[in-house]
Amino acid sequence: MFRKVLIANRGEIAVRIIRACREMNIRTAAVYSEADADAMHVRLADEAVCIGPAAPAESYLNMKQIIGAALALKAEAIHPGFGFLSENAEFARMCQECGIAFIGPSPELIEKMGNKSEAKQTMKEAGIPVVPGTDFPVSGGEEALEEANKIGFPVMIKASAGGGGKGMRLAYTQQEFPALFHAAQQEAINAFGDGTMYLERYVQAPRHVEVQIIGDRYGNVVHLGERDCSIQRRHQKMIEESPCAFISPEIREKMCCTAVEAARAVGYENAGTIEFLLDQSGEFFFMEMNTRIQVEHPVSELVSGVDLIREQIRTAAGLPLSVKQEDIVFRGHAIECRINAEDPLHGFMPCPGTVKKIHLPGGNGIRMDTAIYPGYRIPPYYDSMIVKVITFDRDRTGAISKMSSVLSELMIEGVETNRDFLYDVLHHPDFLSGMFHTDFIERNYEL
Amino acid sequence: MFRKVLIANRGEIAVRIIRACREMNIRTAAVYSEADADAMHVRLADEAVCIGPAAPAESYLNMKQIIGAALALKAEAIHPGFGFLSENAEFARMCQECGIAFIGPSPELIEKMGNKSEAKQTMKEAGIPVVPGTDFPVSGGEEALEEANKIGFPVMIKASAGGGGKGMRLAYTQQEFPALFHAAQQEAINAFGDGTMYLERYVQAPRHVEVQIIGDRYGNVVHLGERDCSIQRRHQKMIEESPCAFISPEIREKMCCTAVEAARAVGYENAGTIEFLLDQSGEFFFMEMNTRIQVEHPVSELVSGVDLIREQIRTAAGLPLSVKQEDIVFRGHAIECRINAEDPLHGFMPCPGTVKKIHLPGGNGIRMDTAIYPGYRIPPYYDSMIVKVITFDRDRTGAISKMSSVLSELMIEGVETNRDFLYDVLHHPDFLSGMFHTDFIERNYEL
Repeated sequence: MFRKVLIANRGEIAVRIIRACREMNIRTAAVYSEADADAMHVRLADEAVCIGPAAPAESYLNMKQIIGAALALKAEAIHPGFGFLSENAEFARMCQECGIAFIGPSPELIEKMGNKSEAKQTMKEAGIPVVPGTDFPVSGGEEALEEANKIGFPVMIKASAGGGGKGMRLAYTQQEFPALFHAAQQEAINAFGDGTMYLERYVQAPRHVEVQIIGDRYGNVVHLGERDCSIQRRHQKMIEESPCAFISPEIREKMCCTAVEAARAVGYENAGTIEFLLDQSGEFFFMEMNTRIQVEHPVSELVSGVDLIREQIRTAAGLPLSVKQEDIVFRGHAIECRINAEDPLHGFMPCPGTVKKIHLPGGNGIRMDTAIYPGYRIPPYYDSMIVKVITFDRDRTGAISKMSSVLSELMIEGVETNRDFLYDVLHHPDFLSGMFHTDFIERNYEL
Repeated sequence: MFRKVLIANRGEIAVRIIRACREMNIRTAAVYSEADADAMHVRLADEAVCIGPAAPAESYLNMKQIIGAALALKAEAIHPGFGFLSENAEFARMCQECGIAFIGPSPELIEKMGNKSEAKQTMKEAGIPVVPGTDFPVSGGEEALEEANKIGFPVMIKASAGGGGKGMRLAYTQQEFPALFHAAQQEAINAFGDGTMYLERYVQAPRHVEVQIIGDRYGNVVHLGERDCSIQRRHQKMIEESPCAFISPEIREKMCCTAVEAARAVGYENAGTIEFLLDQSGEFFFMEMNTRIQVEHPVSELVSGVDLIREQIRTAAGLPLSVKQEDIVFRGHAIECRINAEDPLHGFMPCPGTVKKIHLPGGNGIRMDTAIYPGYRIPPYYDSMIVKVITFDRDRTGAISKMSSVLSELMIEGVETNRDFLYDVLHHPDFLSGMFHTDFIERNYEL
């Protein structure tokens, strides 16, 4: 096992990783920007080194500085957390070349999954369902209609050169298809001088459901169940939960097995997430794979009882996974709310500032992942997420009641937060019923 | 369900109960002494009323004041927490007479189990194993030896009038028994003028293992597994864990079933604990039954996934238990350390004072039950326990590593605590190996 791990991140995820290391008797080295000298991750690590000015490009994204720090401090591994360099193949490769273990998958895998169309192609070849569509341009007429029928309606007609909604039409039936195809193509020719068209199944009222997997270098891959992350605002997740309230045990099983197959197909090592688009009929399609730990990993930890950061470190050190699929007993329901220092009444504008008093509720079924403390100055340079509140109970109703109770008790003085907004979402009838889609925030709060 | 519950307690257990109520949409009324005006439970409850001066007898033990407050605030139920009035049959009866639900068992049951010899007799009649012994005086000679053989060696010879070790002898074999009996009896006659003697099996190297049960008024009783509470100092528990590291699955099953039988035998309702003395061979004997929620209940909640306070409130309101035994999936290992404001270097003397800075670690598998906050003045009138740190992991090793990590990160400035002492116990080879008995603290730290 590693004797020392450097954490190339900040905030609550850096603290989360430091604690996991300490529990494993691994020493920790923190890195920090000039804006983060007083940050909690700096205080909790065994050692800490400043790697540059506040701007991320000069500090948390500064590969040479970070690797230099790891070498100077004799860290044998680097945990990248999420964001920053976590999905940067070049950084993973640099680590490799310097004899430092990168706690994540290989640079090749990061690259392959980072290229969205290559990832989709790879998965398709491995037999993983992707959103059906044409991989080749369709010229129109009979051929286009034939392809549309193969894909299945509703079909989105898209211009290859398209953008801003131009050259796009949505066809619900084969009757209306030819006219819509013609209109889209004409629009594309007029707008871009290019009438190359593609077709793709339109997924109606989709949910974003993802499966957490983790693999080791001995070919073992397990899943830790799925997470429903449909409550998003402009592709930023806001509330995540596990299990998904919407799907049947059969679809859940199928989705989780598909994710394990997908990971096996690419020889995946370390923690990763397979994101699916789930339609109303229960059909699901591969969207993309995230080759890192995710913000919302705690909900999977709570329902599965598996410590994901620990498994990441173990597998990066060449140890096998500490669990087999059949050992994992899923229990209860977990929900995460992301508390951001932002103002929902003013377009969710970030509100950095100094945290004065804090009261973070604790107790049964409550987990708080945070790096704030009284007197902490939230710097304006980084993500606005300041606390992850995670609740766990026997069922979804219990987890929601608990979250509602925690949010009403929670007190963070000194900065605006989205606490009340989250509380409101939590009590929305569609959220309570579990009948929501990725457009939930937009439809209910922004239109 | 109740609309309002009054909490007749203070500190972390009052906060724990307030949160459970809030999650169930029940309003809460706190009571407090003049010394507790700034206490967290006062701040978190929906309403709060002062019930008298600091001295417990005039406030938290003042039955009339508390019931008066409940009636004035129209609380339909009173949760007594632990300590104070929680095992006071008279109080439970007064509640009943005033039409207030007492969240606990009936006054009759509290009385019956509160009388230790009656409780033992009741359990013996129900076929629950108790420490074997004579219920009648033995005069000596052949009769005494015959009884000793029936009980099984080692046998403790005790004078009925005994005290301070006088008139007591421990006999390991039948060979040495007659002489020891004679010596003990002579000593008793000389010391107390009374030679009435009893015999009792001497339980060697005992462990204190207790089973959490909960029952409803429909005759349903479930157990939430056992807790090992052998790490005690002068009968004050210090560290508790679930499951017990020492026993086999067979003994565990037998002990838990015995506890359920015992609870059924007395028609038990609400939460209760059956305490057993476990000997080295795996034989166990009923010690006593606690007819209240216990300090260490969180470890059972973490391994069983059942919320005990919620079940207490449900069953007191006449609802059935929300779980059946077969629905309870036991998972992982939980440990609790009691952080007290006390000085282990000076006889564990309580050290009340003002808490300055606090850093309570959070994150995966960490639960903190506390009512302290920065600036809080710990009053000298009550129990010195200020934080319950509970860790949960897949196995005992993990839970211990986590506890070790949490204790080293934990910071409470302003008052002395037993944090370092707990840390030391946690790293003792006998604790780590699981081979300890109720004399662990005495033998390793006080002799």
